[in-house]
Amino acid sequence: MKELSVGIDIGGTNTAIGIVDEKGNFWAESSISTNKYLTIESFVEALTKKINECLDSINENYIVKGIGVGAPNGNFYTGTIEFAPNLNWKGVVPLVELLNKNFHLPIVLTNDANAAAMGEMIYGSAKGMKNFIVITLGTGLGSGFVVNGKLVYGNDGFAGELGHVIIDVNGRKCGCGRKGCLETYVSATGIKNTVIELLDNKNSESILNQIDRNKLDSKDIFMAAKEGDKLALEAFDFTAKILALQLANSVAITSPEAIFLFGGLALSGDYILKPTKKYFEENLLEIFKDKVKLELSGLMGKNAAVLGAAALIWNI
Amino acid sequence: MKELSVGIDIGGTNTAIGIVDEKGNFWAESSISTNKYLTIESFVEALTKKINECLDSINENYIVKGIGVGAPNGNFYTGTIEFAPNLNWKGVVPLVELLNKNFHLPIVLTNDANAAAMGEMIYGSAKGMKNFIVITLGTGLGSGFVVNGKLVYGNDGFAGELGHVIIDVNGRKCGCGRKGCLETYVSATGIKNTVIELLDNKNSESILNQIDRNKLDSKDIFMAAKEGDKLALEAFDFTAKILALQLANSVAITSPEAIFLFGGLALSGDYILKPTKKYFEENLLEIFKDKVKLELSGLMGKNAAVLGAAALIWNI
Repeated sequence: MKELSVGIDIGGTNTAIGIVDEKGNFWAESSISTNKYLTIESFVEALTKKINECLDSINENYIVKGIGVGAPNGNFYTGTIEFAPNLNWKGVVPLVELLNKNFHLPIVLTNDANAAAMGEMIYGSAKGMKNFIVITLGTGLGSGFVVNGKLVYGNDGFAGELGHVIIDVNGRKCGCGRKGCLETYVSATGIKNTVIELLDNKNSESILNQIDRNKLDSKDIFMAAKEGDKLALEAFDFTAKILALQLANSVAITSPEAIFLFGGLALSGDYILKPTKKYFEENLLEIFKDKVKLELSGLMGKNAAVLGAAALIWNI
Repeated sequence: MKELSVGIDIGGTNTAIGIVDEKGNFWAESSISTNKYLTIESFVEALTKKINECLDSINENYIVKGIGVGAPNGNFYTGTIEFAPNLNWKGVVPLVELLNKNFHLPIVLTNDANAAAMGEMIYGSAKGMKNFIVITLGTGLGSGFVVNGKLVYGNDGFAGELGHVIIDVNGRKCGCGRKGCLETYVSATGIKNTVIELLDNKNSESILNQIDRNKLDSKDIFMAAKEGDKLALEAFDFTAKILALQLANSVAITSPEAIFLFGGLALSGDYILKPTKKYFEENLLEIFKDKVKLELSGLMGKNAAVLGAAALIWNI
């Protein structure tokens, strides 16, 4: 009998749903709005309906092994979404408990970056690896650490916050209320702010000067770099240098076999990967040099967030 | 039948041997010189003889479950000591293989800090904990990370090198050949160098001025702090601030239940612990505040290195 997993990716705007088998094939797909639902109860009701529609559309015998959910601030241990700044539902939201009333199946919740790491292990480039790190470079910087073949959730379910490692106590203000967190430099938002600083300080002739600063995003910086824009290339170099040092420091702690970069900023490909690799090797402790792979995610361009959520079920 | 473990702590000068039960009681103890033996073969021969003498001295029926060894640069996966700067035997030394010729038992080798972490879990203050960190503050800074109840060895057996996290790319020269590693600031050696810098820069009236700088050690700094010496207190504060930030950063990665400080500098007790605690809480990401215990090791003053090595056998 075909075994299937339901993968759900809850984003600030949309929630994507996929019914996936162990090889990563999609048997059904759909989505609902996230921000349309002002209460968690109404959201769970709509989500339940859509999951059932997806399952009903499959014309083959199957078993549903469980439901995996990736969500901002998702806590693996408690099954709750806790104080997620970009969702309508405030405080601690018992998502798994509510879903379990409608689906009497194993339901696993974790944050987006941990789901991405699990997706990499089951469906991506980390197949067979026991120790690796996935870094998601989006609006912020998320990370999923896998040690001995298991995701590191830590004592309270919130491990893997590499984006909130402080790299400069007098650095940029972070959304978390502190200063100098890694994600204020290394993320789609971080590189945008780096470009703005460079434009302000340099009187440069960059083509990025022509873009309204409120609309500037990491894709614009990528396009400028492709055209050889020096300021854009400098911004990538600056970002890569900071990322590389913290990756080298992470290697000293968990000694992974590989590190995978994922998310919007990783779409810049070699513009972020090449300088990061160079600085990474320079910064590694001797015993780790030339040992640790640094690559783009093997799931780039795929519906990776849903795959990652679905993957949670194969590794309970 | 009484079950026993052989714990061996290989230091640069001496190698300590203890026969220990699961409660941490010593049934026999001894030691041999480490640096007297110029070849690993002659060392293993002497060590074997001494272990057998210890075992022969026990007047009760017993089973030996295995031999645990803590050694600088000890690799768990390969059973080898690799390029240990303070030992006579150069290159990669197959210690477990050689010992196994004489003892047909499980033999586990790891580095000192990992052994300390295992000792804390079996015999110390981390009993029952699944996620914690032990920091050893000696000549350098060692660390053992426990995640999901298991030591983190990483892909190559060398995980847990928190002492070689780079905190300042232009910082103090480190023995590893790079600059600004944490242990150049936070260790017995680090605080000594901080005191020397402060003495040079301040024309201070510190009582530490009376000590020959070549002989100055962390105990002198502790004694001066006890007498209220301002410069000594400033050195502790400076050290604590740097340690605290990196502990807070480590919490963001592995989210431990507790962190334990161990080793020579930790003998300074509250002089290092109190300011570290203060800065640690200040630096933690909101979700981790008031959650993570920061304490001195529960094995301080005990033969902890041997206990830690023996503990490796109870957690294979």
